[in-house]
Amino acid sequence: MSRKLRMGMIGGGTGSFIGDVHRKAASIDGLIELVCGAFSSNAEKSIQSGKNLFLPEDRCYGSYEEMILKEKELPEDVRMDFVAIVTPNHMHFPPAKFALEHGFHVVCDKPITLTLDEAIELQKIMETSDRLFALTHNYIGYPMVKQAKALVDNGDLGKIRKIQVQYLQGWLSTLVEKTDNKQASWRTDPTRSGIGGALGDIGTHAENLVEYITGLQIEELAADLGRFGEGRTLDDDGNLLIRMNNGAKGTMSFSQIALGEENNLGIKVYGEKGSIEWYQENPNELITRWLDKPKQIYTPNGNSLYPESLSVTRIPAGHPEGYLEAFATVYKNFATHLTAVLEGKTIAKPDYPTVADGVRGMKFIYASVESDKNNAAWVKIN
Amino acid sequence: MSRKLRMGMIGGGTGSFIGDVHRKAASIDGLIELVCGAFSSNAEKSIQSGKNLFLPEDRCYGSYEEMILKEKELPEDVRMDFVAIVTPNHMHFPPAKFALEHGFHVVCDKPITLTLDEAIELQKIMETSDRLFALTHNYIGYPMVKQAKALVDNGDLGKIRKIQVQYLQGWLSTLVEKTDNKQASWRTDPTRSGIGGALGDIGTHAENLVEYITGLQIEELAADLGRFGEGRTLDDDGNLLIRMNNGAKGTMSFSQIALGEENNLGIKVYGEKGSIEWYQENPNELITRWLDKPKQIYTPNGNSLYPESLSVTRIPAGHPEGYLEAFATVYKNFATHLTAVLEGKTIAKPDYPTVADGVRGMKFIYASVESDKNNAAWVKIN
Amino acid sequence: MSRKLRMGMIGGGTGSFIGDVHRKAASIDGLIELVCGAFSSNAEKSIQSGKNLFLPEDRCYGSYEEMILKEKELPEDVRMDFVAIVTPNHMHFPPAKFALEHGFHVVCDKPITLTLDEAIELQKIMETSDRLFALTHNYIGYPMVKQAKALVDNGDLGKIRKIQVQYLQGWLSTLVEKTDNKQASWRTDPTRSGIGGALGDIGTHAENLVEYITGLQIEELAADLGRFGEGRTLDDDGNLLIRMNNGAKGTMSFSQIALGEENNLGIKVYGEKGSIEWYQENPNELITRWLDKPKQIYTPNGNSLYPESLSVTRIPAGHPEGYLEAFATVYKNFATHLTAVLEGKTIAKPDYPTVADGVRGMKFIYASVESDKNNAAWVKIN
Amino acid sequence: MSRKLRMGMIGGGTGSFIGDVHRKAASIDGLIELVCGAFSSNAEKSIQSGKNLFLPEDRCYGSYEEMILKEKELPEDVRMDFVAIVTPNHMHFPPAKFALEHGFHVVCDKPITLTLDEAIELQKIMETSDRLFALTHNYIGYPMVKQAKALVDNGDLGKIRKIQVQYLQGWLSTLVEKTDNKQASWRTDPTRSGIGGALGDIGTHAENLVEYITGLQIEELAADLGRFGEGRTLDDDGNLLIRMNNGAKGTMSFSQIALGEENNLGIKVYGEKGSIEWYQENPNELITRWLDKPKQIYTPNGNSLYPESLSVTRIPAGHPEGYLEAFATVYKNFATHLTAVLEGKTIAKPDYPTVADGVRGMKFIYASVESDKNNAAWVKIN
Repeated sequence: MSRKLRMGMIGGGTGSFIGDVHRKAASIDGLIELVCGAFSSNAEKSIQSGKNLFLPEDRCYGSYEEMILKEKELPEDVRMDFVAIVTPNHMHFPPAKFALEHGFHVVCDKPITLTLDEAIELQKIMETSDRLFALTHNYIGYPMVKQAKALVDNGDLGKIRKIQVQYLQGWLSTLVEKTDNKQASWRTDPTRSGIGGALGDIGTHAENLVEYITGLQIEELAADLGRFGEGRTLDDDGNLLIRMNNGAKGTMSFSQIALGEENNLGIKVYGEKGSIEWYQENPNELITRWLDKPKQIYTPNGNSLYPESLSVTRIPAGHPEGYLEAFATVYKNFATHLTAVLEGKTIAKPDYPTVADGVRGMKFIYASVESDKNNAAWVKIN
Repeated sequence: MSRKLRMGMIGGGTGSFIGDVHRKAASIDGLIELVCGAFSSNAEKSIQSGKNLFLPEDRCYGSYEEMILKEKELPEDVRMDFVAIVTPNHMHFPPAKFALEHGFHVVCDKPITLTLDEAIELQKIMETSDRLFALTHNYIGYPMVKQAKALVDNGDLGKIRKIQVQYLQGWLSTLVEKTDNKQASWRTDPTRSGIGGALGDIGTHAENLVEYITGLQIEELAADLGRFGEGRTLDDDGNLLIRMNNGAKGTMSFSQIALGEENNLGIKVYGEKGSIEWYQENPNELITRWLDKPKQIYTPNGNSLYPESLSVTRIPAGHPEGYLEAFATVYKNFATHLTAVLEGKTIAKPDYPTVADGVRGMKFIYASVESDKNNAAWVKIN
Repeated sequence: MSRKLRMGMIGGGTGSFIGDVHRKAASIDGLIELVCGAFSSNAEKSIQSGKNLFLPEDRCYGSYEEMILKEKELPEDVRMDFVAIVTPNHMHFPPAKFALEHGFHVVCDKPITLTLDEAIELQKIMETSDRLFALTHNYIGYPMVKQAKALVDNGDLGKIRKIQVQYLQGWLSTLVEKTDNKQASWRTDPTRSGIGGALGDIGTHAENLVEYITGLQIEELAADLGRFGEGRTLDDDGNLLIRMNNGAKGTMSFSQIALGEENNLGIKVYGEKGSIEWYQENPNELITRWLDKPKQIYTPNGNSLYPESLSVTRIPAGHPEGYLEAFATVYKNFATHLTAVLEGKTIAKPDYPTVADGVRGMKFIYASVESDKNNAAWVKIN
Repeated sequence: MSRKLRMGMIGGGTGSFIGDVHRKAASIDGLIELVCGAFSSNAEKSIQSGKNLFLPEDRCYGSYEEMILKEKELPEDVRMDFVAIVTPNHMHFPPAKFALEHGFHVVCDKPITLTLDEAIELQKIMETSDRLFALTHNYIGYPMVKQAKALVDNGDLGKIRKIQVQYLQGWLSTLVEKTDNKQASWRTDPTRSGIGGALGDIGTHAENLVEYITGLQIEELAADLGRFGEGRTLDDDGNLLIRMNNGAKGTMSFSQIALGEENNLGIKVYGEKGSIEWYQENPNELITRWLDKPKQIYTPNGNSLYPESLSVTRIPAGHPEGYLEAFATVYKNFATHLTAVLEGKTIAKPDYPTVADGVRGMKFIYASVESDKNNAAWVKIN
């Protein structure tokens, strides 16, 4: 195809953290251009946000409905191809559904929806839709995560026995939601965040990472959630026992009150033949351990990598890629798929999270909350 | 006192791992000399082991009873002052009791006894004994562990909220107990190891480290133990949720099937004002995080340390101390106490693990096994 | 200004490493769009490269002269604002001069020119030009480099005494220039690379980093260059003594035969009050040491940073930024300056490398080669 | 042999740093016992120091001459076997010579003597002596240094091309020699330290480490020494270019004014097939890089080690050994050799530094000072 894909954004006005991330991630590989947006439910603000992004005023809308309906009327070579939904959780499902029903493809931030019911409904919609849906579990975009998965898939680690996964942040150690911190405000509010606090915000990333790398599923879990910030109704901390569907056992720990931690997503997976260890804050190292060899450290574009890892690096070994590039890989893989679809082609094995991953995430949230209510009793995810 | 303390060893014949460690640790600081031993229940072998250690034949005994009874008859300025018990777990209690009853002080490897009952009986004996008893939870001897404890004790971290502790080894990833590996053989045998496998061998170290650093106690736990090695009756892996007696929550994970891990004891403690992170394999760094300062790395004998840490280093900053030195610190503190006692003095606050720590360890083992039998139900430790 | 800046690229056709880097770096912040290119001296190839980038055929030119002359004729609201020169070294000066003379601003890869004479001529041109010129010494774009510089500038380190800087790669350990490796081919060829091999390619980055962070200049140097690859006429390795213009002393080491090293640019600066240490492969940590405090680790967007560092991060602490983002910061600062100029405004203190830095780099190359010819005798840079 | 070796110490009274280190190092492996000492030239003080070490008064002497002469008269099964010289540099040669001439073996701290002439004279003495002489270049005792050497010796790295070695400390950043710091006082005093300051104290360790690991010799060097502390006559900092006798090139940097550095001895060696990197402050990791494999990290007693490394570890993998253990390995290897000699046996390849290493060290000091006086001109070491 001889053109960039055209993206319309929902949410992500000036000052938004995640909207800016999506825009940068979408632009890095030169496959996508932002053409319009419903950046705010206030038309005035939406136009101002659009101006800051050099968008023409008439492509800045005051609501996602307006955007979707008006864009639909534009000539095919002008109108947006897909929407990127970067709003708080309660505003994921309505625009996703509306966009799909009006023929637009969808990229959506996680967790997929406010409630499990919404997620299941979205899954049903997708079953009969020919549109694409991508969920931005961005952390699986790292080259060393791809390598970790490939090591498991190729049997290098042998049968998986033990897992430790953590996602530790400290930014809610104090009651910042009582200041003018918008990020904290909606994330601690069940009407906008859903029944999970840290659980939905970062626990789902941990769950997704484990299942992506190992190819296994969490079969059951026992969750002990914490609400350490005074007055919080949603969890700001969680400790879990997990059992995988192959018999492996492990722990998960996530927190937003782990004081001083910045964004410490990490995972250790131990098999019968080898083991891996990886941390998001130092993403360009994959530590591996073996029965009869010294510890080995893989690096992006370095020696002895699987093609699945090599194919997602952009620059030579030793030139660190970061969070935005990993995020961009989700967009790139989505764009590659969408371009193929628009050209009437098929693609062997699209590699980005979909509605199925979103439903897993919501089931994980619900199972954890149920377990926690029952004093960390075991709850199955199915 | 103008002399070294005299140590008699029980167990630890030629080829023993932990016997050699105890001897080296006891000798580093020049306060203790090995004068006799019951290195084996085979008198011949005991003598041979003693010879390798340059001991005279008549101080090498064929049983601990023989050693204790004969040494007792020796002149006061010749006979041993204390025994060091370095046998497998089932042979801790009998010699400890026998030594105490015959007036000898005791240093004993962990876990303190084979059963909880034995531990409680030992505690009762100690209540009316004027002898000293030290349990070699050696990991608390590290200078950075002392600093971590001091940071907590001085309130620098504020109220503790979250804990992660792990003790990961991989040496039982394959069935080495079926080879001629003596270490593996008795550790996987309940008659010599007790009801805990990895639980007793390393889980108790993790438990002890948490309680030592935080000054808190594990109030209840939910334990999911694994027996991954085919045919093993004892656990070789464990994942636990823990709740501390101040409301803090956390996870514990220990394993001897975490393939490729060597001796990865590590701990993270998060408070309301600061946090610490420490790993035994890199023991000379204590990572600390703060609300409003950059991450700080303390080093032994480096800047800004508490006296409790400074006092246990032997060499200038940048000269790494290791496992043997940490172990030696337990011996040194015990020796300092014992010397004071022998000189009729008292000591403000002896800093080495005692029978109380040993009982905590056994209760931890029993609670974990009970929890595991009930599908990881919560069990209180009291 | 209500529009993106328009970039025309010289060099950087399909398959080029550095052209792709420039395009990605220019696009991340949404301030620049690629509108045209002379991607190859072969018009056919240039068009094909442009197609891959979704450019219209009529904006893909067969030479930089053609591009510059034709773009000049386009309406002001269409034509490119500046050129990005991403060719091998011998093709830096001619297009830079041509572009400036025809009124276009210039971004140019390093080293600035093939020869020192060219660099000095370019500097003279710039003295009377009202156009902007940016040199992409990208490594100074890292947030932790900005923090390091700010620590020096604010006197936190005190007077600088000692410096160690290294730039270690291993990709020329074997004679890859004899395979079809284009990168290796021109870099080992004096007619395209100039008199410096590794010296020009990476040594200049090391020189630039030292002078940027410390605010000092290398006053004299003694260089011992190596040509380890059989048949190489240009250096592939260098070891230098350096003396700074404040009396500080140090070493510099760069190499492309440091087997196994990927892109290990690193620097240590020791002052009378504090010290810093930084490595490009782990760019999100700045290690600092102090007379009376523990070692402190700064992180991008973390605690206690200077505004100069905070202002160049794009995402929250713990979300690693990498090579492309650092590169993008050079483009962003250039774009901000150029936008101000186009709007008739001035800017306090543009922060990107200029022709002066380029001349310093060339003088560094020439001094090093002269020193090396005289058995590493001291040579002044002035 | 059925007894420990008997050591007499010269220097190392109460409060001495290095005396205590020698005593601990000598005692760890249970092969050596301290039996007497001339701890001070003040007989009173010597006796008091001996008392603190539980020595009888009549084995505490007021001078090394007295000790050597009196011990010589003691029965063979009582008198010391060897002396350990732990005095400042100016007091190395006289007691070493005196001890050898009276039939005692010698262990001596580095640098071997005050002057090069003394070193050469000592070498001559040794040529006709049947006594043993060990120089405590302790850093080569680390298991990972042994592994590094074995990798070179076995050709795994191929021909060595490039070397970087550093030994960085910061403890002389301020004028501590003007306080009551005894360590600083004699080390900055040429009458007690010799013509080298940091050069002799730590530069010689760096030189020894390079030559030990690579099996090469520094053929020539260019040294730029610094005297940053006001009023210092001896160097407190040095930067060197080095050329090895196989054509390899490199840098050496040492300093005692590298503020905040503790004891950062480190080395990188790059060959045609592989490379190694090691740091004394984290001694239990040996980083290796390869043409076609990922980076590998060796650990003591871990996978894939050479016997030369395995044979010097005392405890299982993951149980860190430190500075004292590395130091102890020099003593252990010396003791093993001496025991063999006393038993009338020979030993294949004793592995501890000898007088030859000491002479190399002195030549290194003298060449560096000469080079520095001539503005860092090249000076050969022969």
